[in-house]
Amino acid sequence: MTSILVVGSVAYDTIETPHERRERVLGGSASFFSLAAAQFAPVRAVGVVGDDFRQEDLDLLAIHGADVSGIVRATGRTFFWAGRYHEDLIERDTLITELGVFADFRPEIPPTWRDTPYVFLANIQPDLQRHVLESMTRPALVVLDTMNLWIETTRDALLDVLGRGDVLLVNDGEARLLTGERSLARAATAIRELGPAWVVIKKGEHGALLFGPDVLLAVPGLILNEVLDPTGAGDTFAGGFVGSLAAAEARADSPAALFRRAMLDGTVAASFCPEAFGVEGLLAMNAVAREERLERLRFMMSP
Amino acid sequence: MTSILVVGSVAYDTIETPHERRERVLGGSASFFSLAAAQFAPVRAVGVVGDDFRQEDLDLLAIHGADVSGIVRATGRTFFWAGRYHEDLIERDTLITELGVFADFRPEIPPTWRDTPYVFLANIQPDLQRHVLESMTRPALVVLDTMNLWIETTRDALLDVLGRGDVLLVNDGEARLLTGERSLARAATAIRELGPAWVVIKKGEHGALLFGPDVLLAVPGLILNEVLDPTGAGDTFAGGFVGSLAAAEARADSPAALFRRAMLDGTVAASFCPEAFGVEGLLAMNAVAREERLERLRFMMSP
Repeated sequence: MTSILVVGSVAYDTIETPHERRERVLGGSASFFSLAAAQFAPVRAVGVVGDDFRQEDLDLLAIHGADVSGIVRATGRTFFWAGRYHEDLIERDTLITELGVFADFRPEIPPTWRDTPYVFLANIQPDLQRHVLESMTRPALVVLDTMNLWIETTRDALLDVLGRGDVLLVNDGEARLLTGERSLARAATAIRELGPAWVVIKKGEHGALLFGPDVLLAVPGLILNEVLDPTGAGDTFAGGFVGSLAAAEARADSPAALFRRAMLDGTVAASFCPEAFGVEGLLAMNAVAREERLERLRFMMSP
Repeated sequence: MTSILVVGSVAYDTIETPHERRERVLGGSASFFSLAAAQFAPVRAVGVVGDDFRQEDLDLLAIHGADVSGIVRATGRTFFWAGRYHEDLIERDTLITELGVFADFRPEIPPTWRDTPYVFLANIQPDLQRHVLESMTRPALVVLDTMNLWIETTRDALLDVLGRGDVLLVNDGEARLLTGERSLARAATAIRELGPAWVVIKKGEHGALLFGPDVLLAVPGLILNEVLDPTGAGDTFAGGFVGSLAAAEARADSPAALFRRAMLDGTVAASFCPEAFGVEGLLAMNAVAREERLERLRFMMSP
């Protein structure tokens, strides 16, 4: 069976919403991604944690299908983030960012993992993303994320790595910042000219857009009764999206059909995230629950 | 052929965007609505203008299919609004609001119009909305709009008129303010308990949601290359939406199918609006151009 490599952060998050506060829950892009992607295919996670990291949190990822032997334990503190959400549960303020051991993170890919066909590089520094790609032996699909910080501070390195990617996943603000285009259509075109044949623009509760060769697809967010904590929904989307593509290898569908389906699977996965704090909502995911939401999503999209 | 009654504002707007400024262009909810709805069925417009109103602007509405004999001319100035859009072309600040003759507007429905089957009440004061409904003889469909001001200042009157409506069209912020529910699913349920069987929640460039009996539909906004001025897009959506329902009378489709189609027609109509200032973008609408965009929209929604 094909597998998926993810390189990203493993973190503890303290999250405040207008109604609740949770201390040091498991977070980080690699955690959310792994739990979602492992629904579809085996995941190989590369990251770093500190000596304060709870073994039970590594076990949680492992039990759900992630090989965590690429998550190294370093001396120091685990990446810690604290944030406070506004009343709308969308806007948030960062209260604390302590990089800890993540500050010196230099991902080393275990030799037996270098031929992993599906690669997801979460929003780590672009030079590190390039370093990972240079370790890999011809991956079938490279999916990149990034963030405002790298667009603003390490633009050249980001452009270099973009030229090596097949898919860029960004949110609407990042797409606009990266390209200077207010129109998402123009932004997507500009990004595709930088390298990735496919661009996914994530819009939070409003869903996501896919731009690719002869493809334009808008998928709405599932309508949720309860939003407790949206942290990690974007990485969870990425996990469902890349997982779906990896699991689809055997299918005879066209690339366009596979990518369309991946958008639905990403949206369904992301819908589990905000229903609880940290990664807790993702633990309710299974094939039956995903299928039920996939049907709801298709119903919502039926004109 | 069935016809549509609209009661709303007819205005002059001065609009500033980061790139351009236009003075005293034709605006107002009844203007945008009429131009869109008249694509589908004859429109009867009720409103008031001042002695500064240009005859050519009334002629423009009339030429495009609106009977403007319900727009009375009063002594004084036409409703005037000036606003400035931010860089995102979404957020805006109101610079000037001069109600002029609109301050004393008390819509009187011409006797021969009282049996108009389709009624759209734009976001005028709820007591005026009720007054119009009390003039009408059993309309087939009553569609209501409202706004933050009325939700906050005339809530009881609004609740009364909601009990008489079939469809409420609001934006996401208004739906949340009206119900106190952050979840749009819960907000729509709460609104439906107040009266309207159907609720449309407009989300600007992110599209619109339809909630109704056994129906939940998410329609994305069409992806536009150029956004010059989004003023009036919501009323234009309403025009396409109500127009579609009025034109569908002869069709044998189920209510759910008709409302789904109306969501698409509303979205297509609204897409013409931001491409130029004021109502100018709407003048590019015709059956061929709408059909082309309807196909694009269906393509964007095909999973």
